[in-house]
Amino acid sequence: MELKSYLKERKELIDREILKFLPPEPEFGKKLYEAVRYSLTVGGKRLRPILCMAGCEIVGGKVEDAVTPACAIEMIHTYSLIHDDLPAMDNDTLRRGHPTTWVKFGEAVAILAGDALLNRAFEVLSEWDFDCERKVQVISEISRASGMLGMVLGQQCDLDAEGRNDVTLEELLFIHKHKTGRLITASVVSGGITGGGSEEEVEALKRYGDHIGLAFQIVDDVLDVVGDQEKLGKNVGSDIEKRKVTFVTFFGVEGARKRAEEEIERAVGSLKIFPEDKREPLEAIARFIVEREY
Amino acid sequence: MELKSYLKERKELIDREILKFLPPEPEFGKKLYEAVRYSLTVGGKRLRPILCMAGCEIVGGKVEDAVTPACAIEMIHTYSLIHDDLPAMDNDTLRRGHPTTWVKFGEAVAILAGDALLNRAFEVLSEWDFDCERKVQVISEISRASGMLGMVLGQQCDLDAEGRNDVTLEELLFIHKHKTGRLITASVVSGGITGGGSEEEVEALKRYGDHIGLAFQIVDDVLDVVGDQEKLGKNVGSDIEKRKVTFVTFFGVEGARKRAEEEIERAVGSLKIFPEDKREPLEAIARFIVEREY
Repeated sequence: MELKSYLKERKELIDREILKFLPPEPEFGKKLYEAVRYSLTVGGKRLRPILCMAGCEIVGGKVEDAVTPACAIEMIHTYSLIHDDLPAMDNDTLRRGHPTTWVKFGEAVAILAGDALLNRAFEVLSEWDFDCERKVQVISEISRASGMLGMVLGQQCDLDAEGRNDVTLEELLFIHKHKTGRLITASVVSGGITGGGSEEEVEALKRYGDHIGLAFQIVDDVLDVVGDQEKLGKNVGSDIEKRKVTFVTFFGVEGARKRAEEEIERAVGSLKIFPEDKREPLEAIARFIVEREY
Repeated sequence: MELKSYLKERKELIDREILKFLPPEPEFGKKLYEAVRYSLTVGGKRLRPILCMAGCEIVGGKVEDAVTPACAIEMIHTYSLIHDDLPAMDNDTLRRGHPTTWVKFGEAVAILAGDALLNRAFEVLSEWDFDCERKVQVISEISRASGMLGMVLGQQCDLDAEGRNDVTLEELLFIHKHKTGRLITASVVSGGITGGGSEEEVEALKRYGDHIGLAFQIVDDVLDVVGDQEKLGKNVGSDIEKRKVTFVTFFGVEGARKRAEEEIERAVGSLKIFPEDKREPLEAIARFIVEREY
């Protein structure tokens, strides 16, 4: 399997499909629509929707079935980036090589564009033409992961930790488990539910998601120190500038890399219950996470 | 029927039940939890959840069944107030007689508390122990009403209209239909769906909701001119200060009042398909909307 072309093809699928989930342009308030469209098109790796589709396929489901939850998850991920970038939050001006939504459209529109995307994700999921029970399970999984027990809580904890040098490893793990981990896990788990995976299979995907989620964040911290601003499409060195405690603070660059690799091995290990010929995409995605330069 | 005690009893029911839908307090990031709890307890009339419960009962459903969608809708309403009050939006410092969430907890926490409540509403709905098909219909109804074809769009249009004196009546109607109308309609319609109402009944509730929603906003505009700051629990005169075009601009205070009364008569008229002994609560709520002083 050629990972690079697999990721490219899947990314293009999402780039195309996600815009179909936008409602028709309204008569008034077009700026909101523009901001939502802009935020969805400036791109990114589409890692979460790719995980969702791969989670569906590994349990024997059809990739087409997973397009709706995949796009809903990417909408939620995009909303979270828009809100996190706001001046009152992380105050970031550059994202994926483009001006952030608030820089381009102003703060008020950015707040509303985030709200619109979060709402839209649940609209799209509730109108999804699919088995009712599984659909509700997916909505529950995603809303838990993104909400006040998940991503939103993680962002709150991240803000609380800023500027403090007494953050413990336990707190740092809590932050990232919530801020990034939960939605990554929900992506692959939602795919598994969509594809009709057994309880045991969904449980394995949950472990896989937890491990790659942690690895992903550790690598993010490493890239903030050693990464290339151009390749990353965002400002580097911001953690040091903000005196943020990160995994690099605890383990150093090399130690953090090693820790990320261990997590990836565990993630790959969780896939052992699936037939060998089906594991390849999720294995490859896991390895890509530690090897990525952006 | 004694409307005052009916409203009081139902409000108290929601005040009590809504807090039960909060998740357990987290280990870290407690400020988010506090801000959410504060925003939910400073109160208001609980009009939307009361409409939801009454919509369920008028079609023959049990009020207990409607508690979950009623509380979810109030969470969404609360999230929208938190975000609308932000400095980048309406920059309001007083709401329901208390400091707004951003004044009390800071902007970042307020943005996150709004996000948390919106997410939580869908969590609570998806985990609701209820008929799957109806549940999904309710999630769809609510997410459409609150999202980028509903409330969020209305807020965007409201911001676009600020400071402009060329706002037409058509645009003003569009703003309020979306900003306040859609969620009010979704409240009573969700109740009707929950109670197992027929298509015709749900359609009648939709018309009822559309009319009271418009009346509600017209009265709001009137109260901003002639209302008592203390009774309202919010700053009055803010529309004039912001040179906002309102229904009072088009019709004057007396004309606007008359228009609101006409809408209420139409709302009451839509209820004619229901048995006479069941109409009273929704009729009384409609009349309360134009007679209210807060």
